[in-house]
Amino acid sequence: MRKVGIAGVGHTKFGRSEVSLVDMLALAALEALDDAGIRTGRRHGVDQVFVASMGAGILNRQSSVASALVDTLNLQPAMAETVENGPASGASAVKLGYMAIASGMCDVALVVGGELMRVVTGWEATDFVATMLHPDAEYAYGLTLPAFAGMFTRLYMDKYGVTEKDLAMVAVKNHEHAMHNPVAHIQLVPSFHAIIEDEDAPVINPYVAEPLRVYDVCPVSDGAAAVVLCAMDLADRFRKKPVRIAGIGQATDTHVVAEREVPTDLLAVRLAAQRAYAMAGLKPEDIDVAELHDAFTILEIAISEEAGLFPKGEGHLAVRRGETRVGGRIPINTSGGLKAKGHPLGATGVSQIVELVRQLRGEAGGRQVEGARHGLAVNFGGFGNNVVATILSKEE
Amino acid sequence: MRKVGIAGVGHTKFGRSEVSLVDMLALAALEALDDAGIRTGRRHGVDQVFVASMGAGILNRQSSVASALVDTLNLQPAMAETVENGPASGASAVKLGYMAIASGMCDVALVVGGELMRVVTGWEATDFVATMLHPDAEYAYGLTLPAFAGMFTRLYMDKYGVTEKDLAMVAVKNHEHAMHNPVAHIQLVPSFHAIIEDEDAPVINPYVAEPLRVYDVCPVSDGAAAVVLCAMDLADRFRKKPVRIAGIGQATDTHVVAEREVPTDLLAVRLAAQRAYAMAGLKPEDIDVAELHDAFTILEIAISEEAGLFPKGEGHLAVRRGETRVGGRIPINTSGGLKAKGHPLGATGVSQIVELVRQLRGEAGGRQVEGARHGLAVNFGGFGNNVVATILSKEE
Repeated sequence: MRKVGIAGVGHTKFGRSEVSLVDMLALAALEALDDAGIRTGRRHGVDQVFVASMGAGILNRQSSVASALVDTLNLQPAMAETVENGPASGASAVKLGYMAIASGMCDVALVVGGELMRVVTGWEATDFVATMLHPDAEYAYGLTLPAFAGMFTRLYMDKYGVTEKDLAMVAVKNHEHAMHNPVAHIQLVPSFHAIIEDEDAPVINPYVAEPLRVYDVCPVSDGAAAVVLCAMDLADRFRKKPVRIAGIGQATDTHVVAEREVPTDLLAVRLAAQRAYAMAGLKPEDIDVAELHDAFTILEIAISEEAGLFPKGEGHLAVRRGETRVGGRIPINTSGGLKAKGHPLGATGVSQIVELVRQLRGEAGGRQVEGARHGLAVNFGGFGNNVVATILSKEE
Repeated sequence: MRKVGIAGVGHTKFGRSEVSLVDMLALAALEALDDAGIRTGRRHGVDQVFVASMGAGILNRQSSVASALVDTLNLQPAMAETVENGPASGASAVKLGYMAIASGMCDVALVVGGELMRVVTGWEATDFVATMLHPDAEYAYGLTLPAFAGMFTRLYMDKYGVTEKDLAMVAVKNHEHAMHNPVAHIQLVPSFHAIIEDEDAPVINPYVAEPLRVYDVCPVSDGAAAVVLCAMDLADRFRKKPVRIAGIGQATDTHVVAEREVPTDLLAVRLAAQRAYAMAGLKPEDIDVAELHDAFTILEIAISEEAGLFPKGEGHLAVRRGETRVGGRIPINTSGGLKAKGHPLGATGVSQIVELVRQLRGEAGGRQVEGARHGLAVNFGGFGNNVVATILSKEE
């Protein structure tokens, strides 16, 4: 199989976009093309463009966004498609970029994920996100993602002894990491005491879906992220040495959460990670830095276990020991994660890859993991029904 | 590059669906899996599912449809994504299935296209379709697809001498073909005299966007189509001998139609077809049967020229000579085309491939093209801004 790498990365400041969806995608793309040393225009060399978005249709009433982006960037006659896999759309688009190059049909692919989702707020945002649930068996009954996450957390607490304080530690850690990431949406660090210990904590940090509080849930953010993929045999064309995509694994689980045999297991995460490790020829202990889909704090803990970084049921102990912060044994969500960097759905999977590339290149500034060689990203679709794990490796 | 073929095909009756979007997709998929001899269940062997839909979000307010389909079909842990490229979503999904297998990451991929679009009618349907136009430069000014097609037709008539009667001949031909296709939406043949020559013709067949009349425009249809792709080296696993995907070409043009240098040229069709011929090692004269994107009758003529089947400006002369009907030199739209079979947007590109497979297998009944060995499909996104050409070849 032809080897594939990442030659350039770009990222808008997550938060509230002042520009249209297509223009926001273009801003991230232009930064990634520039980072790779590609100029747009007649001899751009980009064969394929993938756009990842979950809400372009539902929220922004736009189709053919990938074609519009090609036009905006003057990348004709590049092929172009929009890809959707709920909140894992970004990693899915990176996977398709990988396949496009590995198949030999393309040499260079631009993958851009983005979401202009602050056009809705409050219950409308929650309802939009819930469109990823099973239309007949879940959505029709009013189920939402926070409701699922709350029930999942309660079961996890009962079974493994996770506490609300453990979850707050994840939140504070990720907010601290985000302070070193200029593109993160939220640039403030909540005091652990104020959000969980103080007598006013229930006011500052009320329950959203008990036992999950406001600080356990990611914000609603606009944003876009982009990567330029290339065949590794063409590495010389680009400004920087490409970071190699060493492994990609993906798996689906029952879409209907109620049908899962063990509701605290995330089998799609487990299988996706196993497949990615097998393809990369690596083990969990080889991973130096990880971006895990912390749309809810409990998910960072559960995913870290299913991905093999810690034994099942012990992820929260690693949080307590400080192993998952920058400087710890295996730093998780150095970017600030979905929790503090923000979670523009279609952007997230690409944003995770951008962070890993910056870490492996040594460009992560105050949040740099020293000597990082292998990075893992886990992007989580639905409530774990379609998960993509990606492993990047630094080429020596 | 690993060779890829089509081992099974499935197709719902286009028209009005009595079932939900996901169930409609499942019906087409089950027929294709059965045709290939694949049973769902633990050892199904399907590695990847692609769903093509343009309107799942805008019309049906659903995301993660591909994951829901995996669940409905019990195809876990197959990977799954939804793909959107306007009305060319179907061919794009087939292309991605090709890449998935050619890359070596998959052996078997299920590609299902579908649209549940009769939830809107009249101007709301036209407005939905218009979401594929450039959001800022076209859609915002009230432009629609029929308006573009009308202007394009007028220019074509002025330049090449195409007449309204030529267009009516295309319509009547495709309706005649559809009479032999049990899954076609419209099962009636309009009389050429009644729709264009009779004094009552303007009543029966009024202008939609002058000079295009009702019978020049495809209907609004629900429907789904599915294909099972496989690595050709695994051909023995399947019930029928796979038909090979010999070539795929895709190209984008300016999204904004007003920016095209020669407005009667469809450069993306020309380039996509050239790329497909080059990959297949074939020439236009090798093609025995073609499915061309006749959302408007003029497009069948224009695409037939840009795809090299006739010299530019002479496609309508071939129609007059009867060369494009079954029994003619190069039969076009034997399925009835978008015009009479129907055009459920995301389904169309897959439906074209289904028809070609049936032709190359000799399963096309009353519309069979005798001895067909090579088939061409052209699926047209936007107003020609993102076009996919696919060539299938019968393995001897």
